[in-house]
Amino acid sequence: MLIVMRHGATRDEVEKVISVIEEMGYQAQPMPGVQRTAVGLVGNDGRVDASRLEGLPGVHEVIHVSQPYKQVSREWKADATVVRLGGGAGGVAFGGTEVVAIAGPCSVESERQIVEAARQVKEAGAVVLRGGAWKPRSSPYSFQGLGKPGLRLLAKAREETGLLICTEAMDETGLGWVAEMADIVQIGARNMQNFSLLKVAGRCGKPVLLKRGISATVQELLLSAEYLLAEGNHDVILCERGVRGFDPATRNLFDLTAIPVVHKL
Amino acid sequence: MLIVMRHGATRDEVEKVISVIEEMGYQAQPMPGVQRTAVGLVGNDGRVDASRLEGLPGVHEVIHVSQPYKQVSREWKADATVVRLGGGAGGVAFGGTEVVAIAGPCSVESERQIVEAARQVKEAGAVVLRGGAWKPRSSPYSFQGLGKPGLRLLAKAREETGLLICTEAMDETGLGWVAEMADIVQIGARNMQNFSLLKVAGRCGKPVLLKRGISATVQELLLSAEYLLAEGNHDVILCERGVRGFDPATRNLFDLTAIPVVHKL
Amino acid sequence: MLIVMRHGATRDEVEKVISVIEEMGYQAQPMPGVQRTAVGLVGNDGRVDASRLEGLPGVHEVIHVSQPYKQVSREWKADATVVRLGGGAGGVAFGGTEVVAIAGPCSVESERQIVEAARQVKEAGAVVLRGGAWKPRSSPYSFQGLGKPGLRLLAKAREETGLLICTEAMDETGLGWVAEMADIVQIGARNMQNFSLLKVAGRCGKPVLLKRGISATVQELLLSAEYLLAEGNHDVILCERGVRGFDPATRNLFDLTAIPVVHKL
Amino acid sequence: MLIVMRHGATRDEVEKVISVIEEMGYQAQPMPGVQRTAVGLVGNDGRVDASRLEGLPGVHEVIHVSQPYKQVSREWKADATVVRLGGGAGGVAFGGTEVVAIAGPCSVESERQIVEAARQVKEAGAVVLRGGAWKPRSSPYSFQGLGKPGLRLLAKAREETGLLICTEAMDETGLGWVAEMADIVQIGARNMQNFSLLKVAGRCGKPVLLKRGISATVQELLLSAEYLLAEGNHDVILCERGVRGFDPATRNLFDLTAIPVVHKL
Repeated sequence: MLIVMRHGATRDEVEKVISVIEEMGYQAQPMPGVQRTAVGLVGNDGRVDASRLEGLPGVHEVIHVSQPYKQVSREWKADATVVRLGGGAGGVAFGGTEVVAIAGPCSVESERQIVEAARQVKEAGAVVLRGGAWKPRSSPYSFQGLGKPGLRLLAKAREETGLLICTEAMDETGLGWVAEMADIVQIGARNMQNFSLLKVAGRCGKPVLLKRGISATVQELLLSAEYLLAEGNHDVILCERGVRGFDPATRNLFDLTAIPVVHKL
Repeated sequence: MLIVMRHGATRDEVEKVISVIEEMGYQAQPMPGVQRTAVGLVGNDGRVDASRLEGLPGVHEVIHVSQPYKQVSREWKADATVVRLGGGAGGVAFGGTEVVAIAGPCSVESERQIVEAARQVKEAGAVVLRGGAWKPRSSPYSFQGLGKPGLRLLAKAREETGLLICTEAMDETGLGWVAEMADIVQIGARNMQNFSLLKVAGRCGKPVLLKRGISATVQELLLSAEYLLAEGNHDVILCERGVRGFDPATRNLFDLTAIPVVHKL
Repeated sequence: MLIVMRHGATRDEVEKVISVIEEMGYQAQPMPGVQRTAVGLVGNDGRVDASRLEGLPGVHEVIHVSQPYKQVSREWKADATVVRLGGGAGGVAFGGTEVVAIAGPCSVESERQIVEAARQVKEAGAVVLRGGAWKPRSSPYSFQGLGKPGLRLLAKAREETGLLICTEAMDETGLGWVAEMADIVQIGARNMQNFSLLKVAGRCGKPVLLKRGISATVQELLLSAEYLLAEGNHDVILCERGVRGFDPATRNLFDLTAIPVVHKL
Repeated sequence: MLIVMRHGATRDEVEKVISVIEEMGYQAQPMPGVQRTAVGLVGNDGRVDASRLEGLPGVHEVIHVSQPYKQVSREWKADATVVRLGGGAGGVAFGGTEVVAIAGPCSVESERQIVEAARQVKEAGAVVLRGGAWKPRSSPYSFQGLGKPGLRLLAKAREETGLLICTEAMDETGLGWVAEMADIVQIGARNMQNFSLLKVAGRCGKPVLLKRGISATVQELLLSAEYLLAEGNHDVILCERGVRGFDPATRNLFDLTAIPVVHKL
């Protein structure tokens, strides 16, 4: 962590920053510059509370050098995470070298519709069927999904086709049902920072597909994933679904370059 | 609703759109243009399902003329909504001509801290005290709030100062406690589209302060408010808290002009 | 064009809109709705001045159905535009089925550097060499390019390798030199709406590579291209170079889906 | 400047960074951390070329502590800049304690229109009249302004009302005329990073109103102003005109908080 002082900060202000860093149990390393002085905080284990330093007189800015996430990082675990589902010949692995497709309709509407859709996506090469039993809809007057009966129709489609199923949970109660019946629990973009839901998902015992929020940074996405890992769930699949842009020409702005950035971090 | 046909759409394609509109129980009004034909759907009561029309051959775009929200609109209720809290001399009215201030610390940390903060914000002119008992934090390793004991400390500060209290609820269980103990239930920016939580808040019997999501459009904000009204809660206070911008020079981009836009709609 | 009236607009206000449309020489087609009335303007040839209608009492919004660009659109010219450079065996075609690569350093720095870079990019499969002789730099204190001598070094690299060359022009004077010496004139992202420069580029007699502005919509990009076509230059190559996003994790947000949108329009 | 090493960077990689910093003539100050090592570059006078350090093996990131602009900063000149126009009783000062208004129509259309508009804005309290003689328009088919005759009409309106005049220049030729006839030369949002034009404006001898680009950061705005100062023009008026947002509910997103940020920097 680097504490950057204002241009013209007094010697006393710099001394105060140093003594607070030392009080907190870290080492302070002053770096005088031509424009301004900065003070390095050495030995940061990721638990330093910056707010105490930000409020000191003469402080211009606190720059974080460490990343706030841990278990999701390559620095914690250098190897790629592979999430395996299903066993034997029908097994599916996310995060390996193979590209696997999840496909299906927006919502589950009827048995006929979902079974037919399942057959089509299977034929087209998908290995997991998606379809909403609960749909987060901007308007309270839009169709909100069939709910629990929708889950049963998805299970039926799985039976008929052998596809695995992935569907969204919107709250704690629904998440219990989804975790029981589906193969992958989906957390939608609008709930990416619904931390209460993330904690429950982190204990649900099923892989979680975490969709990136419509204007979440990569760091926020990784921190939301960290909520799942911190609760013991390491089977996390991240989903880039596009962010909100300024151009109405496309509904979402697909952030392709976020993918290698996430892979690297 | 206006169905805009592709340049070069055939006469049959236009006829098909007209007949679908009529099947849906509305009137169709074709408008041939030099570049392309459009078909007006007359008599839209806000319940038309556009997806059926969007999928027809030759259709370029469906343009919505009606707004998707109802009870929050001026067209439903022309007068301004005034939310009144407290009675007698200490009463507070949001949405009237007076500007009322809600102030307080980010989190409730201790009795001494919150009571002292309450005294200061009262002296500075605030009429409602805010402070988080539950804090939605990007990182699972950041302080998440004192929880229920935090609510009791807020109640203590109210007792000592006479201020009303407003605090955030992050899930159904917490919302029950907040609605019981606080004067205003806050729904945070990250939960603006947590529709399960909105439905519970719509039935909680207390005024709700709904914060705009970090990249929510005005229409989405109004639709989230509509969730509350649709459940019977008309005491909704909207909060512009800034949106996510591209410039790291400010943490949030305060969208001042959204305020008159919301007032007008 | 569709003129949407306010909810509660009077019959007189609607009549006034109709009579103005007729005065302008078009046909008006009123479409009464449950929530509000809309009036279609029939026969729009793309030259209607909306501002006259927007200011009329009772008008809520004017919705454009026609696109403002013409010559760049598929509706004007259905076939893909192929820009051909060089002749014979070394010929290059942009916009056809082949993927062609333009590559090279940010700036031209020295003969040795640019010739060496040219050799490397040629070996790697590029057919056009890029490199800035003039560099638009955010800071006046950053290296601004070698200017005209940089053009000569590019020509030297072309001679040595047979690659075609593409380089940016920042103003009218520089554009003359670039058009004379380079094979493709580049208009940079910051100048995408420098309309004076676009007009000059439209008359320069060389193909133009037009980079999308850092927060230009697809429509604005196409309209800037229209400036070039309107001056008679049909050899326009559009470049998606990423837009400005909110996430500091990547410098630019590459808008992949803009490409099929542009192809379609 | 702080050079942050990758987690797991070797001792040799750190040593290399240190020796390069010393070769460049600065002092290196290594700061070992628990997660990673950082190396401070001490004595940065704002001319350090970061690219040389960014490319070294083991380097994760280079963080800039110094600001890239100089003459526009409070650190260069602590006092507020006051731009004075006109003399005697009719004098106007931008940047002082008074709020002064510039107002007028989008374009100059005719003598009658601009003189009438001038009278109205004067009556409403404005001290400077604006109105475009050249208009940067997204479409080549939109009205582009009257050009030089428009300047004469503005001068006529000044004569009639005593208002000062401010109008936009779009290229070098036009800027000469505008500087000759107007009191303030306007650089529009689309040309904020037209550096060739900024250099000319920096030598034009008249105050410049520099509008913020539609998605320019505060730092980019200040650097564009720096172009003007670097050419000797210290009479720069910055204009916050709103940035591009994601919500079609408002045309521009007025960035109110940018104003105190700019004042502070």
